[in-house]
Amino acid sequence: MSTEHQRIARIRALFARSSPSISLGIGDDCAVLAASARARVWTVDAAIENVHFVRGPMRDEEIGFRALMAAASDIAAMGADATGILCALALPAAFRDDELDDLLSGYAEAADAIGCPVVGGNLTRAAELSITTSVLGEVEQAVTRAGARPGDGVFVSGALGGAALGLHALRAGHAREGAYAECIQRFLRPRARLDLSARLATCASAAIDISDGLAQDLAHLCSASRVGVRLDVSALPRPARFAELAGALGRDADELVLAGGEDYELLFTAELGGVPPEVGVQIGTVTETSVVELVGGDGRPVPLPEGFDHFR
Amino acid sequence: MSTEHQRIARIRALFARSSPSISLGIGDDCAVLAASARARVWTVDAAIENVHFVRGPMRDEEIGFRALMAAASDIAAMGADATGILCALALPAAFRDDELDDLLSGYAEAADAIGCPVVGGNLTRAAELSITTSVLGEVEQAVTRAGARPGDGVFVSGALGGAALGLHALRAGHAREGAYAECIQRFLRPRARLDLSARLATCASAAIDISDGLAQDLAHLCSASRVGVRLDVSALPRPARFAELAGALGRDADELVLAGGEDYELLFTAELGGVPPEVGVQIGTVTETSVVELVGGDGRPVPLPEGFDHFR
Repeated sequence: MSTEHQRIARIRALFARSSPSISLGIGDDCAVLAASARARVWTVDAAIENVHFVRGPMRDEEIGFRALMAAASDIAAMGADATGILCALALPAAFRDDELDDLLSGYAEAADAIGCPVVGGNLTRAAELSITTSVLGEVEQAVTRAGARPGDGVFVSGALGGAALGLHALRAGHAREGAYAECIQRFLRPRARLDLSARLATCASAAIDISDGLAQDLAHLCSASRVGVRLDVSALPRPARFAELAGALGRDADELVLAGGEDYELLFTAELGGVPPEVGVQIGTVTETSVVELVGGDGRPVPLPEGFDHFR
Repeated sequence: MSTEHQRIARIRALFARSSPSISLGIGDDCAVLAASARARVWTVDAAIENVHFVRGPMRDEEIGFRALMAAASDIAAMGADATGILCALALPAAFRDDELDDLLSGYAEAADAIGCPVVGGNLTRAAELSITTSVLGEVEQAVTRAGARPGDGVFVSGALGGAALGLHALRAGHAREGAYAECIQRFLRPRARLDLSARLATCASAAIDISDGLAQDLAHLCSASRVGVRLDVSALPRPARFAELAGALGRDADELVLAGGEDYELLFTAELGGVPPEVGVQIGTVTETSVVELVGGDGRPVPLPEGFDHFR
């Protein structure tokens, strides 16, 4: 077992990576970021053992990867670019050096995947493992939850329900490489949609990332924008063979798609005709009501699945 | 017990406070900060139950106050002004609403004391209480640990050892109001020296906050600046009647002053003659060696106290 000082040296070496926007990285009281003419967006997100992840079923590198992506997704939801990351790590006394290396290699892989440096952090002991990630980003004009206008289209950046089904598949003992590979990867290695930030900033009137599930996050967006939404359930994009795969695990596909959560796709509103298909698929329309109304492909009402009180 | 949604609403109401530099506070995916012509400094610090604090001996409002100040102290150490705070809170299932109110009232009091708004955060369950605070600041030119030059004076912004003795006094059952009141307050309600930021940015060649104790933090500064220091032990400022109070608890006053930690005063170097007495007291001189040498008021060497290997 290394001393805290040795561990900090390992972390520092792992994350030593320069960026023009970072004047000073790991090793001082603070990181220093160069001045910027753009606004800053800023978020923090915690991944806590036995609340957000369970070690064993999830490998340490997957836990690290996912912790960073979940935090970075908030930056994408503002239409912003990620500038820097701070990592506050709390490790149980029994946490080994090789486990720390695995955790941090997943974290570093995620940071590389979004092209954003880890510029500092904090290391401490704790009873349970936790990784608290703060991310700073930059944007000309932030996209908030509050800008949706009646008549706008409602869009989603990718398939929903996969992460939730992936978690069920893992719990049921399915291998990462089998029939549930796509869904399991969506759960274990989500991608913050920072690839869409610039496009979102151009076209979106409001946005939120789907972390709690479409139902809840759509309710948040509607509440902040004081609008309602007519949602076409048949238009919701799903992973390949989703109904079949969900059914084989005794799960309701619609429920997973509507309430699954943790896909970290973006939900946004925009003027009709202004969203290229590679940015988002239209799933509904903003209305002047204050409710979310589900309809089928024929435009007729669809009853709410059980337990969807947040839609009411 | 409130729902998470209700708790977020309480937190949001408590921290609703406007600031010209904050474009968007609590309630969206990210906080939004207006662009600034100054550089940003950025830190994160965790306060974890049974590691950094123990509930019972410490009141919940004291835990909240101290968690914020410990994090904000890093901003002061860069000579910067604090711009915004994110609070990631992890609460045990049994944590009550009135306990949360106490914790947050101390946190809000500390935020008010440094004039810095809480602009967002994260709320989650956990086995143990933890408060992870990220602070953003602004400065023209950050003061780092690395700028000390041989011939500079070494200064400290206030009395040392008080927080450590205050903790011992609390553990020994002393009341907050008795003979140990000053020291106990220094432990429970430390002040991040943001009042000195502008002065520090003007005069200091290097700086660090004293969180781990003078010995360790001076070693960090020397290592980053590749210098040594001749430290006059007789010049170290101490709380009133410190030797007597330490002795009554069976503690060595010099050891507390040199290694106590958690006072959150600033340690800095500056050209001789350039530091007003209200900013710092000179305690030594930067040398071209790479060691810290202790001397008495007469300039003669003083032996290191037991266990001071970090000085060697």
